[in-house]
Amino acid sequence: MNVPISFLSDFGRADEFVGVVHGVIARIAPEVRIVDVGHDFPRGEVRAAALGLLRAIQYLPQGVALAVVDPGVGTERRALAARTEWGTMIGPDNGLLAPAVAMVGGADLIVAIENPELRLPTEGATFAGRDVFAPAAAVVASGQATVEQLGPEVDPDTVVPLMLPLVEHDAATLHGEILWIDHFGNAQTNVSPADLDAAGVTPGSDVVVGIGSVEYRLAWVAAYGQVEAGEGLLHVDSYGQIALAVREGRADDAFPIAVGTTLTMRAPGSPASALQSPSAS
Amino acid sequence: MNVPISFLSDFGRADEFVGVVHGVIARIAPEVRIVDVGHDFPRGEVRAAALGLLRAIQYLPQGVALAVVDPGVGTERRALAARTEWGTMIGPDNGLLAPAVAMVGGADLIVAIENPELRLPTEGATFAGRDVFAPAAAVVASGQATVEQLGPEVDPDTVVPLMLPLVEHDAATLHGEILWIDHFGNAQTNVSPADLDAAGVTPGSDVVVGIGSVEYRLAWVAAYGQVEAGEGLLHVDSYGQIALAVREGRADDAFPIAVGTTLTMRAPGSPASALQSPSAS
Amino acid sequence: MNVPISFLSDFGRADEFVGVVHGVIARIAPEVRIVDVGHDFPRGEVRAAALGLLRAIQYLPQGVALAVVDPGVGTERRALAARTEWGTMIGPDNGLLAPAVAMVGGADLIVAIENPELRLPTEGATFAGRDVFAPAAAVVASGQATVEQLGPEVDPDTVVPLMLPLVEHDAATLHGEILWIDHFGNAQTNVSPADLDAAGVTPGSDVVVGIGSVEYRLAWVAAYGQVEAGEGLLHVDSYGQIALAVREGRADDAFPIAVGTTLTMRAPGSPASALQSPSAS
Repeated sequence: MNVPISFLSDFGRADEFVGVVHGVIARIAPEVRIVDVGHDFPRGEVRAAALGLLRAIQYLPQGVALAVVDPGVGTERRALAARTEWGTMIGPDNGLLAPAVAMVGGADLIVAIENPELRLPTEGATFAGRDVFAPAAAVVASGQATVEQLGPEVDPDTVVPLMLPLVEHDAATLHGEILWIDHFGNAQTNVSPADLDAAGVTPGSDVVVGIGSVEYRLAWVAAYGQVEAGEGLLHVDSYGQIALAVREGRADDAFPIAVGTTLTMRAPGSPASALQSPSAS
Repeated sequence: MNVPISFLSDFGRADEFVGVVHGVIARIAPEVRIVDVGHDFPRGEVRAAALGLLRAIQYLPQGVALAVVDPGVGTERRALAARTEWGTMIGPDNGLLAPAVAMVGGADLIVAIENPELRLPTEGATFAGRDVFAPAAAVVASGQATVEQLGPEVDPDTVVPLMLPLVEHDAATLHGEILWIDHFGNAQTNVSPADLDAAGVTPGSDVVVGIGSVEYRLAWVAAYGQVEAGEGLLHVDSYGQIALAVREGRADDAFPIAVGTTLTMRAPGSPASALQSPSAS
Repeated sequence: MNVPISFLSDFGRADEFVGVVHGVIARIAPEVRIVDVGHDFPRGEVRAAALGLLRAIQYLPQGVALAVVDPGVGTERRALAARTEWGTMIGPDNGLLAPAVAMVGGADLIVAIENPELRLPTEGATFAGRDVFAPAAAVVASGQATVEQLGPEVDPDTVVPLMLPLVEHDAATLHGEILWIDHFGNAQTNVSPADLDAAGVTPGSDVVVGIGSVEYRLAWVAAYGQVEAGEGLLHVDSYGQIALAVREGRADDAFPIAVGTTLTMRAPGSPASALQSPSAS
């Protein structure tokens, strides 16, 4: 029995790291297919990659997810494998797997990958992606080992969570954050359509979006085609979240935003929030 | 029956878009091989990607070509599948597929991909690569659906063409354009060996190449090794087109060129064209 | 019988070159798996890619290695296939394959790929990766041809070697070089633990590292976790070589280094080398 491995990392493409992980898997499990989810997530930024895995997980073939963004390599952080209804998720104990595991309904077993027979030997420092995570993914994906055989069970309460910013509601204003700006300049927020609904904003109407000390009045549209080229808009993006975009343009050019920028949203008629930064006066 | 899918886009590698399309295909058609033709074509530049597909098509395994450069996403542009002798080409109705379809002898059937049973549902905006194009490619490549089943036939006369610049001949001077500058700095033009022949230039002789107001005398050689290191040259490139190159250097460093730059070519003894920009005097 | 092809180049990702090579292999050998070792090695830098292949080779599945970094394309340099215990290595005769071939115990047969029946025809210049190397890799990997059938045997003494810098010992000081700076900013040197041992430095002790006219006292540690965040260190990296690194930082930010920078190492109590550059005084 072989299931695919979906592989995500911050290894970049300039070196042979991604290829070596592919090679290790191919040596152990020649029949296993590998789907490269992405390897250019920002170096060491666990949250960015965790959100990428979260967005991707429901579109990936059930099997094994191998995720390696590991700024704590060389310290005592554990290597984990989490067994879920979707399949097995493998990665460092730093929150990287947490949102995807939660999305698919949680894990019924989490182990620390410590079985010395399943690691590659190394003369020097451990390259965990190559020596620990890839072999574990390969033996599980090819049915050569079960999750239990990777190592001892871990108490779920000891697993490092990932803190994601929550939307806060303050009277009729909601406070959110930019989670992701994609290759095309679209800015996904942590705001859901339900959050806007709770703030009294209905689809198709305008929204007052506050960024820094400036407020922008934008249409909440169903499709880019409903505004003019170059015009900003809000819409429910293809992941179901509220996103800030510009038709035939880039939101990160048109607005002073980056990943992590906070913003407010309210209906045009509603009073500005007490929490909101005042405009310069 | 499974045939490979050759996949080309402008999705870049920073996000998980390419991986998600792979995942969608792997879920629907686990046995289908995917060849990544390239995903770093310039964002939204249909012509650049159409030329990439055109150059690649005869080297790709017959089956399905999936091409997604789609600046019109969110508007009314159609999603097309074209059945050809090479196989099935799938992409937006914006000219992206046109040169490759023509290269392999044209399509005997073009349909609009509209069958709702073959789309992925989405809570928000459609991510057409993931929700429309990938499923269509997967079901056709794995024999789960025919092209006819993807949607209604489209009148070929209504399909958006791709306008490529034609070489113009003015007395003994030809007027061409830089179509592509590759990773190594070689500049492919829209000029063919037959065009140079028509201008009275023979292989092995020199050519006067006009770029802006400057004229360069370059050898038309068969191999880089025939000029000195650092020297410019013209040759028939590996796609059969006339290209401007520099031995052990980059044409885009040595000459004031970019994609879209127009140029002239003539035999050294021939009179300069009346159309040619005069030198500053 | 099909064996995998591990493919490495300097083709970059902006064009369709990598995809076209995949396509050529898929047309000739549809069942052969391709492992992409990396395609973003610096353009035309044979040494950088040769070192990447060397680091990767023992982790790649035995079969065929296809390596194309070929600044001499268009000249008379030969195309080689080397038969080793690991498998067959294919690439230009410019030293690219030499370290990996040596690492796996040398070649028992080297041929020049010249069989015209195994090349793709081209109207213009040869794109050797596509027209010569990929078909050769595909027919060998799929068992359609033996290495002998690719072309005539070559005298190993005529094959271009790769010159790698040797560590020099001068009294108690060793002189080495930075070979590679990886995606995370870690700097691998050509110094081995045995070299440090010969200089009287023991694991766990401090080392005086000279770079330019400055000396740094760094701990030789077993794991990043043994120094503070932001602090420099030496360790045996995951390839068994001495590397300069910074915990939670980049060695190439903290030290004035690049690939090719020379450096010295000595025990703190030992006299400075006569060869060493004096400090400014």
